[in-house]
Amino acid sequence: MYIGRVAGAVVATIKYAHLEGRTLLLVDRLGLDGTETGAYDIAVDVAQAGSGDRVLVMDEGNGARQILGLDPGCIRAVVVGIIDDVELDD
Amino acid sequence: MYIGRVAGAVVATIKYAHLEGRTLLLVDRLGLDGTETGAYDIAVDVAQAGSGDRVLVMDEGNGARQILGLDPGCIRAVVVGIIDDVELDD
Amino acid sequence: MYIGRVAGAVVATIKYAHLEGRTLLLVDRLGLDGTETGAYDIAVDVAQAGSGDRVLVMDEGNGARQILGLDPGCIRAVVVGIIDDVELDD
Amino acid sequence: MYIGRVAGAVVATIKYAHLEGRTLLLVDRLGLDGTETGAYDIAVDVAQAGSGDRVLVMDEGNGARQILGLDPGCIRAVVVGIIDDVELDD
Amino acid sequence: MYIGRVAGAVVATIKYAHLEGRTLLLVDRLGLDGTETGAYDIAVDVAQAGSGDRVLVMDEGNGARQILGLDPGCIRAVVVGIIDDVELDD
Repeated sequence: MYIGRVAGAVVATIKYAHLEGRTLLLVDRLGLDGTETGAYDIAVDVAQAGSGDRVLVMDEGNGARQILGLDPGCIRAVVVGIIDDVELDD
Repeated sequence: MYIGRVAGAVVATIKYAHLEGRTLLLVDRLGLDGTETGAYDIAVDVAQAGSGDRVLVMDEGNGARQILGLDPGCIRAVVVGIIDDVELDD
Repeated sequence: MYIGRVAGAVVATIKYAHLEGRTLLLVDRLGLDGTETGAYDIAVDVAQAGSGDRVLVMDEGNGARQILGLDPGCIRAVVVGIIDDVELDD
Repeated sequence: MYIGRVAGAVVATIKYAHLEGRTLLLVDRLGLDGTETGAYDIAVDVAQAGSGDRVLVMDEGNGARQILGLDPGCIRAVVVGIIDDVELDD
Repeated sequence: MYIGRVAGAVVATIKYAHLEGRTLLLVDRLGLDGTETGAYDIAVDVAQAGSGDRVLVMDEGNGARQILGLDPGCIRAVVVGIIDDVELDD
């Protein structure tokens, strides 16, 4: 899992039934210091995350499919929570 | 999943039955700002994508096999949709 | 597996039952010389690791789920041990 | 999958039965422009590829095992075809 | 799979039964020219590899578990052979 920030969304003409009706968020991958790393994922949202939210992103395909009850599925990344605090030790 | 752009195709003498008759697209991996990252995939097309199209690419092996009904299969990336819009928050 | 160092923790409003009540550690990925690489993971702790501990991190989703007895699950990285010594040959 | 070029082979005293008798090719990972990226794989050959051939490399463990009829197996990359042409759009 | 060189070992207080009694090798990932890439893995040894040996490393979780007869397991990398020769074409 990694810390992400919701950067927007993708609108697509999906040719695959399991993705229809899903919100596809663009999520920036953040470093520990909160800065953007330049990497991103297109993630399915199960946490009702909004624009700018810091989120917990699960980036593993089998787990992602299981969360969404998809089998077969075609999803690798899922927003599973809203981050309240990142506690860094000194 | 990531945002890709169809850059061409590969013609190959395949020694593996499950890939015969499939369109093998060359897909550039794009950054959030729409520029090329230098990375690419050879992806099977299920969205009738054409040259230059911005596409939604699923890059996870188990999901890919399931979409194509292949078991066993040998495919990791699939073009699953045509992207209509990328909405980036400010 | 890789060598990590516990750098802190994440507090999140989780929208997924399997992660509730779990300690989510921020773990820096270390190089062989003990320096930080800049990469990190959010890992579930099963070794009662504390702040600053050098730890053994398992970074593979299926194994992680099995350790935690989760099926379905949504976890990719787990702290599985405390490192006592790193013996480097000359 | 990616475009590779056969760069050589590895000779090893294998301590694992499923790899005995297999040709282990060294395959350079090529960019879309045909140049080497610096990355490589040790891949099992099922396409009778020769030195210098441009090849189609499947780089996903579960699919690789299925192609080779190995279960259990220990193979992640397989050369599945010889590339005749790479058609890049302008 | 990739070419590695045994660089040392890790001693850890493991909190997970499947790793107890296993030799955990530190393995440098080598490039095709035999130089270190800076990447490494902590790998379980099944080839009785010694310090400085060039080894064949399997880096895929499901295969690794199967080799070791672990289910469940928590291992991603395994040293499966000693490399006798790397034959590079000109």
